[in-house]
Amino acid sequence: MKTKFIPHPHVIALINLALAEDLNGGDPTSALLSESNSPQTATIFAKSNFTVAGLPLLPLIIQESRFELEVEFLAQEGDQVKKNQHLAKLHGKAVDILILERTLLNFMQQLSAVATSTRKIKDLTADKVKVADTRKTIPGWRYLQKYAVLIGGGSNHRFNLAGGIMIKDNHIDACGGIAQAVEAIRKHSPHPLRIEVETRNLEEVKQALAAEVDIIMLDNMSPELMKSIIDNFGQRAIFEASGNITIDNIQQIAHCGVQVISLGSLTHTINPPDISMKIDPTP
Amino acid sequence: MKTKFIPHPHVIALINLALAEDLNGGDPTSALLSESNSPQTATIFAKSNFTVAGLPLLPLIIQESRFELEVEFLAQEGDQVKKNQHLAKLHGKAVDILILERTLLNFMQQLSAVATSTRKIKDLTADKVKVADTRKTIPGWRYLQKYAVLIGGGSNHRFNLAGGIMIKDNHIDACGGIAQAVEAIRKHSPHPLRIEVETRNLEEVKQALAAEVDIIMLDNMSPELMKSIIDNFGQRAIFEASGNITIDNIQQIAHCGVQVISLGSLTHTINPPDISMKIDPTP
Amino acid sequence: MKTKFIPHPHVIALINLALAEDLNGGDPTSALLSESNSPQTATIFAKSNFTVAGLPLLPLIIQESRFELEVEFLAQEGDQVKKNQHLAKLHGKAVDILILERTLLNFMQQLSAVATSTRKIKDLTADKVKVADTRKTIPGWRYLQKYAVLIGGGSNHRFNLAGGIMIKDNHIDACGGIAQAVEAIRKHSPHPLRIEVETRNLEEVKQALAAEVDIIMLDNMSPELMKSIIDNFGQRAIFEASGNITIDNIQQIAHCGVQVISLGSLTHTINPPDISMKIDPTP
Amino acid sequence: MKTKFIPHPHVIALINLALAEDLNGGDPTSALLSESNSPQTATIFAKSNFTVAGLPLLPLIIQESRFELEVEFLAQEGDQVKKNQHLAKLHGKAVDILILERTLLNFMQQLSAVATSTRKIKDLTADKVKVADTRKTIPGWRYLQKYAVLIGGGSNHRFNLAGGIMIKDNHIDACGGIAQAVEAIRKHSPHPLRIEVETRNLEEVKQALAAEVDIIMLDNMSPELMKSIIDNFGQRAIFEASGNITIDNIQQIAHCGVQVISLGSLTHTINPPDISMKIDPTP
Amino acid sequence: MKTKFIPHPHVIALINLALAEDLNGGDPTSALLSESNSPQTATIFAKSNFTVAGLPLLPLIIQESRFELEVEFLAQEGDQVKKNQHLAKLHGKAVDILILERTLLNFMQQLSAVATSTRKIKDLTADKVKVADTRKTIPGWRYLQKYAVLIGGGSNHRFNLAGGIMIKDNHIDACGGIAQAVEAIRKHSPHPLRIEVETRNLEEVKQALAAEVDIIMLDNMSPELMKSIIDNFGQRAIFEASGNITIDNIQQIAHCGVQVISLGSLTHTINPPDISMKIDPTP
Amino acid sequence: MKTKFIPHPHVIALINLALAEDLNGGDPTSALLSESNSPQTATIFAKSNFTVAGLPLLPLIIQESRFELEVEFLAQEGDQVKKNQHLAKLHGKAVDILILERTLLNFMQQLSAVATSTRKIKDLTADKVKVADTRKTIPGWRYLQKYAVLIGGGSNHRFNLAGGIMIKDNHIDACGGIAQAVEAIRKHSPHPLRIEVETRNLEEVKQALAAEVDIIMLDNMSPELMKSIIDNFGQRAIFEASGNITIDNIQQIAHCGVQVISLGSLTHTINPPDISMKIDPTP
Repeated sequence: MKTKFIPHPHVIALINLALAEDLNGGDPTSALLSESNSPQTATIFAKSNFTVAGLPLLPLIIQESRFELEVEFLAQEGDQVKKNQHLAKLHGKAVDILILERTLLNFMQQLSAVATSTRKIKDLTADKVKVADTRKTIPGWRYLQKYAVLIGGGSNHRFNLAGGIMIKDNHIDACGGIAQAVEAIRKHSPHPLRIEVETRNLEEVKQALAAEVDIIMLDNMSPELMKSIIDNFGQRAIFEASGNITIDNIQQIAHCGVQVISLGSLTHTINPPDISMKIDPTP
Repeated sequence: MKTKFIPHPHVIALINLALAEDLNGGDPTSALLSESNSPQTATIFAKSNFTVAGLPLLPLIIQESRFELEVEFLAQEGDQVKKNQHLAKLHGKAVDILILERTLLNFMQQLSAVATSTRKIKDLTADKVKVADTRKTIPGWRYLQKYAVLIGGGSNHRFNLAGGIMIKDNHIDACGGIAQAVEAIRKHSPHPLRIEVETRNLEEVKQALAAEVDIIMLDNMSPELMKSIIDNFGQRAIFEASGNITIDNIQQIAHCGVQVISLGSLTHTINPPDISMKIDPTP
Repeated sequence: MKTKFIPHPHVIALINLALAEDLNGGDPTSALLSESNSPQTATIFAKSNFTVAGLPLLPLIIQESRFELEVEFLAQEGDQVKKNQHLAKLHGKAVDILILERTLLNFMQQLSAVATSTRKIKDLTADKVKVADTRKTIPGWRYLQKYAVLIGGGSNHRFNLAGGIMIKDNHIDACGGIAQAVEAIRKHSPHPLRIEVETRNLEEVKQALAAEVDIIMLDNMSPELMKSIIDNFGQRAIFEASGNITIDNIQQIAHCGVQVISLGSLTHTINPPDISMKIDPTP
Repeated sequence: MKTKFIPHPHVIALINLALAEDLNGGDPTSALLSESNSPQTATIFAKSNFTVAGLPLLPLIIQESRFELEVEFLAQEGDQVKKNQHLAKLHGKAVDILILERTLLNFMQQLSAVATSTRKIKDLTADKVKVADTRKTIPGWRYLQKYAVLIGGGSNHRFNLAGGIMIKDNHIDACGGIAQAVEAIRKHSPHPLRIEVETRNLEEVKQALAAEVDIIMLDNMSPELMKSIIDNFGQRAIFEASGNITIDNIQQIAHCGVQVISLGSLTHTINPPDISMKIDPTP
Repeated sequence: MKTKFIPHPHVIALINLALAEDLNGGDPTSALLSESNSPQTATIFAKSNFTVAGLPLLPLIIQESRFELEVEFLAQEGDQVKKNQHLAKLHGKAVDILILERTLLNFMQQLSAVATSTRKIKDLTADKVKVADTRKTIPGWRYLQKYAVLIGGGSNHRFNLAGGIMIKDNHIDACGGIAQAVEAIRKHSPHPLRIEVETRNLEEVKQALAAEVDIIMLDNMSPELMKSIIDNFGQRAIFEASGNITIDNIQQIAHCGVQVISLGSLTHTINPPDISMKIDPTP
Repeated sequence: MKTKFIPHPHVIALINLALAEDLNGGDPTSALLSESNSPQTATIFAKSNFTVAGLPLLPLIIQESRFELEVEFLAQEGDQVKKNQHLAKLHGKAVDILILERTLLNFMQQLSAVATSTRKIKDLTADKVKVADTRKTIPGWRYLQKYAVLIGGGSNHRFNLAGGIMIKDNHIDACGGIAQAVEAIRKHSPHPLRIEVETRNLEEVKQALAAEVDIIMLDNMSPELMKSIIDNFGQRAIFEASGNITIDNIQQIAHCGVQVISLGSLTHTINPPDISMKIDPTP
């Protein structure tokens, strides 16, 4: 799937925080090089195999830095890149390249980490189910991480608290039961949003079905129980598996017939690929 | 070591980004509960063993949210907490607690992840060496991650480009050699900063020693080579090991006699502990 | 319906813009009064009949101004207030009250305008249908206006572009038809969101039904056509009327059987009630 | 009158709030279209007759969005446009156009609403008097609304609390009378500002004249009283009529001889003209 | 004159910039002291004689820092303080006091510098004339510096470009003469603003008088010429002397009879008094 | 020394504050000129002799203003310019030039003031010592002032609290002596930072030497004492003179043999050179 990267104000704010924290005080080491105003080129390249994400951030970070570097892309967003593959070239002054190097790479590595782990999980499930993220994202990174999930072939669960109705235990308790909670919410909730209820056992699933909710989350259930639920009620709601899902059990869960599997680890656990930058030798 | 948490403007800005991304649009699900203005209590607790960090953020996030929740701490920053241990209680309205739950936990988990992995690494090296972070941090999180490294018993490498003089290959090449680079920089660099040079082999170490730099980074060298360098020149500079350091080889490296070991993974690789929140049952 | 007001960062930013634009340069007239540091009280009161909204903003604006005024509420959010009814009292220094007067009233008037017009429309339709807003809001005021719609008894349509899937003419054209557009989107869209299609005639309604979309917007159709559509297909989707809906025809439209009527005018057309402030006479 | 539009930081901040509130979370519907990177054109056009304002905001919003759309103007700021008249064309990718459509139109409609109502009022008074706005503006919109008043042929009253000395009842009471208030203020007020006093009856007008103020506001007076005041004292100050001025009585008031008529409704009451956007058919 | 200090958003933004630039990266030196959580007191005191300004900033900076320090004032804003006089005490933790020390003193010194130099100039002219500032302020400090001018007994010229009409040479040239420029502007300028024209010789003064402007600036004229102008035309406008005014010639200029003397040096030239802070010895 | 100017986010924020404070409300005087859209040129020139700094800010301010002016540089950053020398030309619309004139000049004057006074001090000491700034900077101006110090030939002391370890009296007292303080800090301080101790007499210097600190600040000592200290211990640390250093005694101090002299006055005392702008006559 092609995805539109939107450089919206929160992303710009995060980029400016990143520049502020690293460039605050200048770069006394690189100041030495400031004579070297002749054009230089640097290459950003992969030091391992991974799914690349974050390329559209390169020109954006440079624009925010007010430096005058040109970016030449050598890979496409979402590509499965190999060790030593070149991803992009930067053209400009050496001093500008050196000052921005770390900020550029830090963004690329974080985004590629999410795309790569999503890609791996998604490939295990083929097209059977949607592999969805959660709101367990790194604070400040909600949009970027959910974008990287899309790049890795995943789907987005609700973007924020207003991106879906999600009735949890605490809500249910406060209202006196699933039936009451759903009824109260349905009357006033924004009609473009589906209503989802979190369930922990068969009894709760039946209550949710009786309340005619749109989505039922099966939380921390065994694959056997989930399969039995889907076999019996699969046509009456969208079923989503969640909780304790790992690379080891995801295939079994996918076979239960749920339409969505959601994992907090897609965005809260980060294993960044190694990405590096090298000033090209002068020809 | 006790460490002072400073709620400086970049942290406040990051908290506001986090609130903006999650609360934007409100919380239509929890709105249902808004009648329940009677006092409620919720408990934040550990679901695994880890080193806790981020407790001072709880009241700060609440202050920025303009909600009126009181925090009662049940653990101290830096504690080694056990599964099921209670970390803090929130007193206030249920609706306010539910709206902030995810943001509070996301911050706690990210900070505790860094403190926990630092603690593990540090414990492997005992007091022999400083275990230091790098500038490979999650963009926008520089201060928080470096603070969590301290909480985990680690040390900070330079906070940003102006927090130390670090002469890398590219700088050396641009100046025509280590000697020339160091001379040029020493004349103008801020005198409160030590001068560090990155070296890749014995020859470069000797050049750095001849230039009388303060710190020599031994990049990606074998433990044997590092040991030999320290044995011969250990008194003439601060030696720092860096590159490809893992939980498996860090003890061997620590025995080489380097004073500092720096690891990008302390801050760019995140394995968050499981932290959860539960509304307390009404007594 | 009770609604939770969330003072999120965009609202705080808007309040600060408002303070910046009015207080920039200080208040040379009121400076005269700065001796008068003795306690004063002022009353905010209605000069016409309306539905009041914006009371929670009073303490928030005061907090952002860093002035020390206490607010005493004399009405509740959503109340139908009468001419001359007192809404709130401010206790503090006269100079602080005078400096903030206009900003406080401007916010109250804008929010009450939206709540009042929503209330009027909603009362015409009784409980038959949801009266929903649109994204035609005053830029910067999205959250506040949609909150005021709720206070007035209305419902929210999608909060922003990510708060619902809405397939319009242009999308359909780009994909080659409703069937193709829906299929392409359904595969990748966030599962918590319903899928809505905008239709302009019976033919398009039938295509949308065939594509099994969740919501069908009937755009600018005659009440007769809408009634016939609902009579025939009312059980197969949520139907929403939109376009050229006024206070004159809304009752007829409500009788067609649609579940939702959406109006841009709720938020883009503003007729503020008159709200005023008077320093209380010293007793 | 030609007026210079100044894209100052508060306007930029408001534009970013608008983008943040609508684009937060991306646009999952339009993401579908992201393949369509071939050039597209869209037309912004009038659906009723009005005075257009806000054209300079189009390129500004686009610049802030970081999208790459070109604007081609087909009307000029301040033009009296007719239904179906084309105002501007956007050239770029369809997906970018669709994502920004609502934000662009929302700004245009709000500004054109103010220019149009100002134009109508101004035309009723010919050149006899200045038709001025007040500080009763939509919070965050002070500059944009006062700019639109100029585009509609009106004049600006003070931009903010520091844009003029305005002595109101409360100030007078606190100082013990008009004479004392004016004397206290005159001594210290910035000399580039005129001194205005609000009066409610002939007696107060006489006191203001005795105090030699520069501007006398006649608040809520009958046209007859105002005429008599101007006839007797018209040469001794600038007279401004204010309070309960409508489209029905403004001509009569203009004939009283006042130099300025100020109306809060110019900026707090909004009746936006209908402005729409259509993707051009591919040729 | 008493003056109201308004902590408006631009001041808050400047304080946050100041905190961000100094606290960025924390305070590794003072971290040592973080054990010392027992209450401490520090005294801010004068090390020379000066006019104090900036006291209201102390609690404001502390509030923005989120530290918990209490301020006890020992002097009043505008006081003429003597060497060794105590100005304020801070109560809180030593570590918090030490971290904020420099930021607090830097603000106090800058504001007191302006108040002190204004006070000196003002005392030389007694009450004969207003001593006014200009727009030649330190960028970002407009409000704070103009506030300090008031504290020092001076007056404010226009706060910004919209705080008065000021017709300069370039404007006159562009319009073809003083008469034309004034006529064009008068028709459209905000009526609360006086119209000022800059003149360089008697001929221009006469043209300005003929155009019936409100204020005439006599730019860089000899005291003799100014005296002659005032003697002849003093009743027909407000006259303001400006340009090359120093502590040596200001008394002579004041005797010419001008009502206002404006000096850029009040705000662009800074000679800060010495202000220091000392942790009180533990009793 | 060539120095790299970095337009980092705090500088951009300060520029925006400056634009906001001056352009807020627009420029009613210059609006008159808005017809004159024909190209104009203006010259920024020196009205006295000084060291110029701030040229890179010109295009940056213009970019932030969103005006379309081109800058042509006629001098280089750091040049010793003479009275009447041209520094830069602006090409664009007259109205845009006039609106930005004061903001551009205010920045240039402040930066050139610092560069000029640094240059003067530095020239008195030749190359014998580093002339360093302090943290006594104008709040919000830390980076710009420290950059201007470099342009004037000076050196930077620590950029902020994290840019060096500086142990002052208060720290020493809290820890029970220099030895204890240094030991506690050395164990945990970031290794890229040198450790500096402030001393007031020979006894403290000896304690600092015994503790093997890197830098010893000699605070307010007589030149004779300082010379004796350097003669005896000069090889064992970097010595920095500070306190009561003026243009009159700096040469004597420089001859003592200290390596660094630091002065708060470089950045807290401002005597701006006169810089002006003139619209070029039309040819």
